[in-house]
Amino acid sequence: MIFLYTDFGAADIYAGQVKSVLHQEAPDAAVVDLLHDAPAFDVRAGAHLLAALALRMPQASTTLAVIDPGVGSARAALVVNADGRWFVGPDNGLMSVVASRAAAPVYWHIAWRPERLTASFHGRDLFAPMAAAIARGELPADRVLPVACPDVDFGSADLAAVIYLDHYGNAYTGLRAASVARTVRIAVRGQSIAYARVFSEVPAGQAFWYENSLGLVELAANGGSAAAALDLRVGESVGIVT
Amino acid sequence: MIFLYTDFGAADIYAGQVKSVLHQEAPDAAVVDLLHDAPAFDVRAGAHLLAALALRMPQASTTLAVIDPGVGSARAALVVNADGRWFVGPDNGLMSVVASRAAAPVYWHIAWRPERLTASFHGRDLFAPMAAAIARGELPADRVLPVACPDVDFGSADLAAVIYLDHYGNAYTGLRAASVARTVRIAVRGQSIAYARVFSEVPAGQAFWYENSLGLVELAANGGSAAAALDLRVGESVGIVT
Amino acid sequence: MIFLYTDFGAADIYAGQVKSVLHQEAPDAAVVDLLHDAPAFDVRAGAHLLAALALRMPQASTTLAVIDPGVGSARAALVVNADGRWFVGPDNGLMSVVASRAAAPVYWHIAWRPERLTASFHGRDLFAPMAAAIARGELPADRVLPVACPDVDFGSADLAAVIYLDHYGNAYTGLRAASVARTVRIAVRGQSIAYARVFSEVPAGQAFWYENSLGLVELAANGGSAAAALDLRVGESVGIVT
Repeated sequence: MIFLYTDFGAADIYAGQVKSVLHQEAPDAAVVDLLHDAPAFDVRAGAHLLAALALRMPQASTTLAVIDPGVGSARAALVVNADGRWFVGPDNGLMSVVASRAAAPVYWHIAWRPERLTASFHGRDLFAPMAAAIARGELPADRVLPVACPDVDFGSADLAAVIYLDHYGNAYTGLRAASVARTVRIAVRGQSIAYARVFSEVPAGQAFWYENSLGLVELAANGGSAAAALDLRVGESVGIVT
Repeated sequence: MIFLYTDFGAADIYAGQVKSVLHQEAPDAAVVDLLHDAPAFDVRAGAHLLAALALRMPQASTTLAVIDPGVGSARAALVVNADGRWFVGPDNGLMSVVASRAAAPVYWHIAWRPERLTASFHGRDLFAPMAAAIARGELPADRVLPVACPDVDFGSADLAAVIYLDHYGNAYTGLRAASVARTVRIAVRGQSIAYARVFSEVPAGQAFWYENSLGLVELAANGGSAAAALDLRVGESVGIVT
Repeated sequence: MIFLYTDFGAADIYAGQVKSVLHQEAPDAAVVDLLHDAPAFDVRAGAHLLAALALRMPQASTTLAVIDPGVGSARAALVVNADGRWFVGPDNGLMSVVASRAAAPVYWHIAWRPERLTASFHGRDLFAPMAAAIARGELPADRVLPVACPDVDFGSADLAAVIYLDHYGNAYTGLRAASVARTVRIAVRGQSIAYARVFSEVPAGQAFWYENSLGLVELAANGGSAAAALDLRVGESVGIVT
């Protein structure tokens, strides 16, 4: 299975071109659009969201991960094996959180360049053929160079910030809820938000935090948009008030 | 074949997680995104739109249907077989119109709970594994309890209201056009709209009603947005003027 | 492989119904959503964008191409074989640029009408069954009539206009960059824009033109939206200043 995690835009012209390459070069792989509206231009937020999503990816799956404001510059191209799951994308930190949280991550730089490599669309030209090769069951050893660590590494620690806004107006943070006591409040933009288990446990319109379906601390509002009520954007800092 | 009919948002992070489960648990099934922008928070409108879409679903197909503002509350989980087509989702009325219009609908409540069931994402954790099992060819009898009827039933009658706005600005109603004479006018927001067979039969900009591709009465405007011109929203009542 | 290139809207209710037909009638074909936000109501722009995308379509692939403001009127339905690649859609010029650029295009009108043909959704009712038949490996000879040329033909020449705006705010033109010297400037809305190879070669916020990943002249801005900065829309004329 090949997952796509990008900022290409779900409605835009880029994801389809990537999928065309994948279907041609790995016709037996199922391709799943995980997210094409990953936070553009905020690689760190995107790295934490990817790490949360990765917990449910099956062993031996391959994820093509692209938030790549530096495409065309000198940043390297990276392959990671994080405890059995493969990731392919730019070496700009995007895959470094999921890798840092793995027991034994293995890293390679992509040394190969395809015959037709445009300056602006490595997702289609470079990462898709590599992901397809890996999904076929083989890391092409002649196309990669083992490296000890990535060039950019955000580390394994949680991120105390908003990392994603969904279309209901819920705000994901980079805090893993398993390590956050239900008694704390989450501070954001001068307010502090108490815990509730589910939407239906708070009055209509009231903001609360809960452990969302990816295991993250999420700011939400019952029947409304927490993002609008609290004026939240990706990157906004949050705090834990004990 | 598995159809997805949800309010998860086409660009959002939820549909991909559902598809990941479906591909893992029913790898031979084709998964088709029918709609991920079904009317959120208006289950009745969504039920009528689903009933219209279901007319073209093939026998033995399985539809995962989720508009679920009550997720995490006590509402039951439902499986319906409507004359050979399967539907899986919340027992909140969403599948009750298509079921009520079937000759011999059969209902089950889902008694099974998966090992990992989050409070907020039953689409991924509960409905997707059930839909995958059914798509593999077997209703898992140890996971369901037959029930005589659903807890919430909107019935089989038409709905005289706007149920969907498409991106062109056309407004679907819950009226099946086969039973509406072409001589009537449709009353909405103080205006009354005459029939035309196709867009090209009315002057540019003029609103009209016609039988749309799902067999429903639709309010449209030639070369423009009927929703904008008539200030329409999902839920707006319509009337038939003879 | 079947590509979908339409103005149905990525989030709307139409693409899924087309895919349902394709999966039923050509279950072995991979279906790739190339673009569902092709420029609505601007068939000429859409024709040039399709011609650029077609360069990377594999031999024997089939593309269902629908921008069809005239659906329900008398325009014909067309099948094109452009040097081994198949295209199915309305005969309104949409497929004429890719066809005109082929060495030996072959054209047919679709003479067949399906049992259930709605006036407003030929994409699902007429073009999808035809595309599925072709993808299964056979042009159904009893359903088509050879024609010498299409009714509407935009020709093979470049189009000096904006043909697509992506979600980053980049503006594609219908000019193929291979024939445009890097020393020229692109004139648009009273300004003239110089060339740069990649985004990182210009100061932040500055507009430039470059050869994009489809081989077209594209107007872009480093870290910003060229469409917003230059107030661009699809159809806007551009010029070449030598």
